[in-house]
Amino acid sequence: MKIVCLDLEGVLVPEIWIEFAELTGIAELRATTRDVPDYDELMRFRLDVLNRNGLGLPDIEGVIAKLAPLDGAKTFLDGLRERYQVVILSDTFYEFARPLMRQLGWPTLFCHELAVADDGRITDYRLRMADHKRCSVEAFRGLNFRTLAAGDSYNDTSMLKAAHTGVLFRPPQNVVDEFPQFPVARDYAALDGHIREAFAD
Amino acid sequence: MKIVCLDLEGVLVPEIWIEFAELTGIAELRATTRDVPDYDELMRFRLDVLNRNGLGLPDIEGVIAKLAPLDGAKTFLDGLRERYQVVILSDTFYEFARPLMRQLGWPTLFCHELAVADDGRITDYRLRMADHKRCSVEAFRGLNFRTLAAGDSYNDTSMLKAAHTGVLFRPPQNVVDEFPQFPVARDYAALDGHIREAFAD
Repeated sequence: MKIVCLDLEGVLVPEIWIEFAELTGIAELRATTRDVPDYDELMRFRLDVLNRNGLGLPDIEGVIAKLAPLDGAKTFLDGLRERYQVVILSDTFYEFARPLMRQLGWPTLFCHELAVADDGRITDYRLRMADHKRCSVEAFRGLNFRTLAAGDSYNDTSMLKAAHTGVLFRPPQNVVDEFPQFPVARDYAALDGHIREAFAD
Repeated sequence: MKIVCLDLEGVLVPEIWIEFAELTGIAELRATTRDVPDYDELMRFRLDVLNRNGLGLPDIEGVIAKLAPLDGAKTFLDGLRERYQVVILSDTFYEFARPLMRQLGWPTLFCHELAVADDGRITDYRLRMADHKRCSVEAFRGLNFRTLAAGDSYNDTSMLKAAHTGVLFRPPQNVVDEFPQFPVARDYAALDGHIREAFAD
């Protein structure tokens, strides 16, 4: 009984904040934890920028709805869902992910949520829990699933370590160098191959 | 952050063994734990009946593919998946459920699996874990989800108790009588109403 845990951004869809900055022309929203290492500070900055630009949730959803999953992502995911259980583990927020989840056929997603006022203004964010990707994989193991996790970035490596099998998908070179224990897939065919191999009985 | 845990048979699809017995005309397969209280004995009996009738997995899948989800189940489920995370918790087997999961748009399903020989013969069954519905709800709570569980029968009541909110869906009267703490929904509109109420912020 097998479950595949996939990171979302960089694996199935583009980086949402980056694309959002691009589409709205608000360059400040390109900031990442490389620019503002403290995540809470970064998020407060982002929410402040959104509010200063008068962007409430409906506006934001409208922008994100213009994004599409990565080329081939839907086909890859559909194929996986016919063979295994799949849960997407992401540090995005449900409100941002929704327009993309619709395009992906509503796969199950574990992530975080925003606090939204009646007028659509985003007032806060709520992390469901720290390191929830790793904790989710551990919970699935506790339920006697065989687990495979795939992600692209440093913050995915704790879930890759927790899973029976971890695979890096299109990772930056520093992550490849630091985690030589994980095989690297550069496209969906290669990732699918790693999954089939790990789950072959 | 909200997750709905739904039983499968009797909630979204018909009782698979009963319908299977009906479609194949093999009356012995109508036996339930009411007839053979020991589950392992019942399952060994069922697998023996299948083998004696020369029914391997491909034949079985062909029969089950003729079943359809209950009237309105797909619409109900699609609506839920747009608003919340949904995981189906069932004591059926992946191999039996697959033709129905396809019709339901591949929602995430936690259940058990069969051991199948190369010639398609079902040689054994593997329960992922005992009382896995309750354990799954507890795992989701451990991941800080608000949980609502709905099911129709006695064996769902442990997950209903474990969830923040439990709802009985079209239960037999003895279950209603024994578990007066759970509200009862007789159709999808009522169940949807209970879910919206429980998850209203």
